[in-house]
Amino acid sequence: MKILVINCGSSSLKYELYQMPERISLGKGLVERIGQKVGKICQHFQDIHYCKELEIPNHKVAFEQMMLALLDKETGILKDAGEITGIGHRVVHGGEQYSSSVIIDSEVQAAIEDNCELAPLHNPANLTGITEAAAIFKDVPQVAVFDTAFHQTLPPSAYLYGIPRDFYEKYRIRRYGFHGTSHRYVHGIALELAKRSEENTNMITCHLGNGASITAIQGGKSIDTSMGFTPLEGLMMGTRSGDLDPSIIFYLEERGYDFHELHNILNKKSGLLGLSGISSDLRDLEEAAEQGDCNAIEALDTYAYRIRRYIGAYVANLIKVDMIVFTGGIGQFGVKMRERICSRLENIGIHINRELNRSIGANAGIISQPYSPITILVIPTNEELQIAIDTCDLITEA
Amino acid sequence: MKILVINCGSSSLKYELYQMPERISLGKGLVERIGQKVGKICQHFQDIHYCKELEIPNHKVAFEQMMLALLDKETGILKDAGEITGIGHRVVHGGEQYSSSVIIDSEVQAAIEDNCELAPLHNPANLTGITEAAAIFKDVPQVAVFDTAFHQTLPPSAYLYGIPRDFYEKYRIRRYGFHGTSHRYVHGIALELAKRSEENTNMITCHLGNGASITAIQGGKSIDTSMGFTPLEGLMMGTRSGDLDPSIIFYLEERGYDFHELHNILNKKSGLLGLSGISSDLRDLEEAAEQGDCNAIEALDTYAYRIRRYIGAYVANLIKVDMIVFTGGIGQFGVKMRERICSRLENIGIHINRELNRSIGANAGIISQPYSPITILVIPTNEELQIAIDTCDLITEA
Repeated sequence: MKILVINCGSSSLKYELYQMPERISLGKGLVERIGQKVGKICQHFQDIHYCKELEIPNHKVAFEQMMLALLDKETGILKDAGEITGIGHRVVHGGEQYSSSVIIDSEVQAAIEDNCELAPLHNPANLTGITEAAAIFKDVPQVAVFDTAFHQTLPPSAYLYGIPRDFYEKYRIRRYGFHGTSHRYVHGIALELAKRSEENTNMITCHLGNGASITAIQGGKSIDTSMGFTPLEGLMMGTRSGDLDPSIIFYLEERGYDFHELHNILNKKSGLLGLSGISSDLRDLEEAAEQGDCNAIEALDTYAYRIRRYIGAYVANLIKVDMIVFTGGIGQFGVKMRERICSRLENIGIHINRELNRSIGANAGIISQPYSPITILVIPTNEELQIAIDTCDLITEA
Repeated sequence: MKILVINCGSSSLKYELYQMPERISLGKGLVERIGQKVGKICQHFQDIHYCKELEIPNHKVAFEQMMLALLDKETGILKDAGEITGIGHRVVHGGEQYSSSVIIDSEVQAAIEDNCELAPLHNPANLTGITEAAAIFKDVPQVAVFDTAFHQTLPPSAYLYGIPRDFYEKYRIRRYGFHGTSHRYVHGIALELAKRSEENTNMITCHLGNGASITAIQGGKSIDTSMGFTPLEGLMMGTRSGDLDPSIIFYLEERGYDFHELHNILNKKSGLLGLSGISSDLRDLEEAAEQGDCNAIEALDTYAYRIRRYIGAYVANLIKVDMIVFTGGIGQFGVKMRERICSRLENIGIHINRELNRSIGANAGIISQPYSPITILVIPTNEELQIAIDTCDLITEA
């Protein structure tokens, strides 16, 4: 069957078509700059490319353009819209309502709506995607795959903040965690690669991309994760601060910084970019560090050290850890960063093999010593494929 | 020689008189409610008590009252002010200027003044204490012992935040850490108890009182600590939140909470008190938990889990840990809390002996199994004594 995966943002629409259950990508596309004067759509399948620039005033037009691209006589990847058996949507926030993916009905839509205040930049756009897809595909079943769902197994001691209980009960302020689809995907692939059962395997998954988070998985269940109420908490990221003394916000406000300015700084001008003053891109910083730039070196060291803190915290609390998985752009291609993170962690069972670490390239595989108690893996993530898998599973069951 | 230890707060004055280098306390006192209508001074030495209620309009009068109490014919603990050879002051913030205690001169006073903006509630009062003591004791040498000094050995990767570098360079925003005098004191006692050398010993010290912090000490040097730019970061405390997604502040502000109100809530109405809705006192919560109160149970579990996270993080980064030390009111007397914290950490080398843990009472000693790779100790802290030791050492050297 053919499954269409949709990731609808406020000014963009990403999509990918899958042949399932064979897990074969049939092509993917991106509609950009929705609502701006000059929008753009590009679609790719192997060597066949489809690109157009035009005004895309709203999401309705974006979906129409997606259909034109999908069905294009020359470069299209679909003959008939009727071939699509299911549609899977990435939805950022499932709140406390959803601990797994779910077929969308009016109740689910209401819940996504209800969680808009928890993810004001994402859930409304995700909802728009669902509405527009329904308008085109009518009765084709649609599935919601939530970024937060995988982390709904966190125990209260990991998801509660040390703040008045009212804030949890009234405003639903708690740790939700994000990147759940990615953590779950690489967890599944790691089990397949190692031929291990979910129940008897504990794992730490490090998703290090522009955003970055790390998850402790015990017998298949997320028991702790570094992102919190929002994706700002936890690891230092490309432009996000991660963990911070909350007093710093008050201190800067007293020194004349505006509230919204501070929010913007912590999300968009901090992290690797802010601390280095150079770039949010790991490659630029590695280059600057090699040329002896102290700020770049300190930014890289701080980035790595903060990951090490979390690895230690999770190793302690998982009782026994079998694997650590690196994924995301930096996790997958940051050869030196992986070395920086894993070095001198032998005391907790992490022995990296530097040769394997350097030679793994874009592949999935093991980069630890054969005698390392904790196996270190690199696995390319694929959230779209996980969404396709969930969608296929749910509509097959139904 | 006799050393007078002074801890001068904005409305209080604590003092203790020591016979050094014998480390014998000769008595101590507290002047309270300075600036209020009815102040109070109480002084104790064994069974001899001195207590008076009277108006204490300012610190000058507080110091005069202290002298009257110290020299009282019947209940006094000093015959002549001239017996005092040195005065040690607790000073909260030494900024980046001081990594150890120091004899106070005009340059040191200027530096303490310079750090007032980093500790606006404490440094000004500490300075007042120094000025008033100088007015009384004239040429007696005075020593400043900083809460932050011990942590000045943190490497940049541990003290830098993932925020624009300007904030560090312009506003000096970095991790300073606090409770340094306590962490250093119990570290020293632990070495004495275990007859180990500083250079070859790595240690994690947990100061769990109303405030709470945890420090990783490598060969005598603090390499990481949980409190940050201010004492709000890190562990959950009696009424302080500890670590928090910074976005929560923005989220609540958007919902109508005033800035100062939020600051106050996070410092005074959060932590054990806020999360349980019952009390900031561990004993009250243990009692409520025994009666099945779910909020109390969750608050205790969250408190313990957050300590476990840090223990794991520091075990990973210390390469090899020899000892964990508990101190502070909860660290010293929280028998069940220590059990909660240490249970199921055998995988990282922590094996508690439940019998020893229960029977240790108010003593210093070991509470781990003989085969535990990491020795667990309970050590009563004594910051005043550490201040007296530093003062004695410095004026003897001088």
